[in-house]
Amino acid sequence: MYNIGFIGLGRMGQAICLRLLSHDIILRVYNRTPEKATKLLDKGAVWCNSPAELGAACDIIMLCLSGEQVTEALLTDSENGLLRHCHPGCMIIDTGTISPESATYNAHLTETQGQEYISCPVSGGVEGANNGTLAAIVAAQPAVRTIIESVISRFADRITWLTSHADAQKLKIINNLAESINLLGAFEVLNIGLTHGITLDELHSVLTTCRGRSAYMDVALRFLNSNLKPSDVSLAVRCKDLCLAGSLADISRHYPISDAAIELFSRVREKYGDEQDQCEYFNFINEEKKLNDN
Amino acid sequence: MYNIGFIGLGRMGQAICLRLLSHDIILRVYNRTPEKATKLLDKGAVWCNSPAELGAACDIIMLCLSGEQVTEALLTDSENGLLRHCHPGCMIIDTGTISPESATYNAHLTETQGQEYISCPVSGGVEGANNGTLAAIVAAQPAVRTIIESVISRFADRITWLTSHADAQKLKIINNLAESINLLGAFEVLNIGLTHGITLDELHSVLTTCRGRSAYMDVALRFLNSNLKPSDVSLAVRCKDLCLAGSLADISRHYPISDAAIELFSRVREKYGDEQDQCEYFNFINEEKKLNDN
Repeated sequence: MYNIGFIGLGRMGQAICLRLLSHDIILRVYNRTPEKATKLLDKGAVWCNSPAELGAACDIIMLCLSGEQVTEALLTDSENGLLRHCHPGCMIIDTGTISPESATYNAHLTETQGQEYISCPVSGGVEGANNGTLAAIVAAQPAVRTIIESVISRFADRITWLTSHADAQKLKIINNLAESINLLGAFEVLNIGLTHGITLDELHSVLTTCRGRSAYMDVALRFLNSNLKPSDVSLAVRCKDLCLAGSLADISRHYPISDAAIELFSRVREKYGDEQDQCEYFNFINEEKKLNDN
Repeated sequence: MYNIGFIGLGRMGQAICLRLLSHDIILRVYNRTPEKATKLLDKGAVWCNSPAELGAACDIIMLCLSGEQVTEALLTDSENGLLRHCHPGCMIIDTGTISPESATYNAHLTETQGQEYISCPVSGGVEGANNGTLAAIVAAQPAVRTIIESVISRFADRITWLTSHADAQKLKIINNLAESINLLGAFEVLNIGLTHGITLDELHSVLTTCRGRSAYMDVALRFLNSNLKPSDVSLAVRCKDLCLAGSLADISRHYPISDAAIELFSRVREKYGDEQDQCEYFNFINEEKKLNDN
């Protein structure tokens, strides 16, 4: 029987929790906004009133938080901090995409307390979590991999194992940079096609079978086919990830397509705001066209 | 028994011919440079001394040529032109990526002669042809689709059927634009990863399972994993395709990522020349870095 704790019940966190709920797991949950736990409690999750309470009760704790400051505060808070309440040997699996420095720092702090930090950024969105088809990039000591895998494999079907926490985050950050470029390109070519009166069905057929295809072409096609249903990545998150990429390399000097992508997403965020979806780029193209043509 | 003719024996043409050679096909071939037919003749193909000779002997003729001027000349040459030598009802399957206008013009001319023109741009490269896994975008009248499919399915396993020749080419052109953007992005993120000492195996594992994945990420990874073996798309062909994209839309005004891709590939071609592979972009990044840092 696993005693698993989960902190951070946004859409992704909830989707992963739903995959974890099963007969052989006690799932304890905590979230700053308790309302987000309602659905999970209905399905058998157990509410904890604080990270401290959760930490004291669990062998494995998963974090699905929105930024490295939040994560660091949660781990080290002088009163409620996880690290002072978890027992030795506890494993903390952090699914966040954060800077390599922050991941290394968290791992060091955790180890100092006799606990285990596992970097586990995941890719595939809420849909991938729902289907148990996320891809996970996992930095963990070999000794804990078997037990970690038995948990992660409930929501991810592809795992890349690493030992360096910094490398795990670097890989996730450059993956997300490729996503950004592919998404912008996908919306531009789809826009050109639609402008020429080509149907979405025809575009879908060609752009999922020919070599212009990509995982993010699928995201763009789904957005257009679903009457603009959001992709669950906000412009704030997209720009946060691109900012992390900017700290890995001198992008404006050496990587021109990446540089164009970073500049564009920052313009889109400026126009639509943090909370809007990354797929707003499609509307951005159309609105800029109108502005330019007037 | 099919009587099939094939004109244009570059690497792609030869790969498709090898898929066509079988017990129930007589395959007649012609190429401006006869040496390129040697391997095919060894395997049972029949040489023709001119397009005219080939045209007179075949029911179905496939073209795999390098540009729309060459295609138009081959069809309409006053002495050797295919259209004056093919018999009525002959079907001409053109695998080339050409402008929508040129495809429409070819179809009109061919129809006027009582023959059938089929636009059939293909995606997937020489490797896809070798494996019979090309994706084909096919504009053809419904009446000839069954017979056409029996031929195309020998080298392509995914077909998008259309009736408009212009739309078939537009779809291929925007697909190729997406390829271009994805390739540049792929090489940039791989370069960032390698610069940080991340191994190609780790990059491969993450970038083929996480959502930064794309068909052209695979092309970039194969290039780096194969000791820089070319991808069989020259810079001249890449830039020709991007030039066709430029004729579909006011790219510099409305599509910034596409615009950056077009400008970059034109700089790469200027630096390395027409015949070099599109994957030279990886070397371009490294050399520009050195120049910028001195």
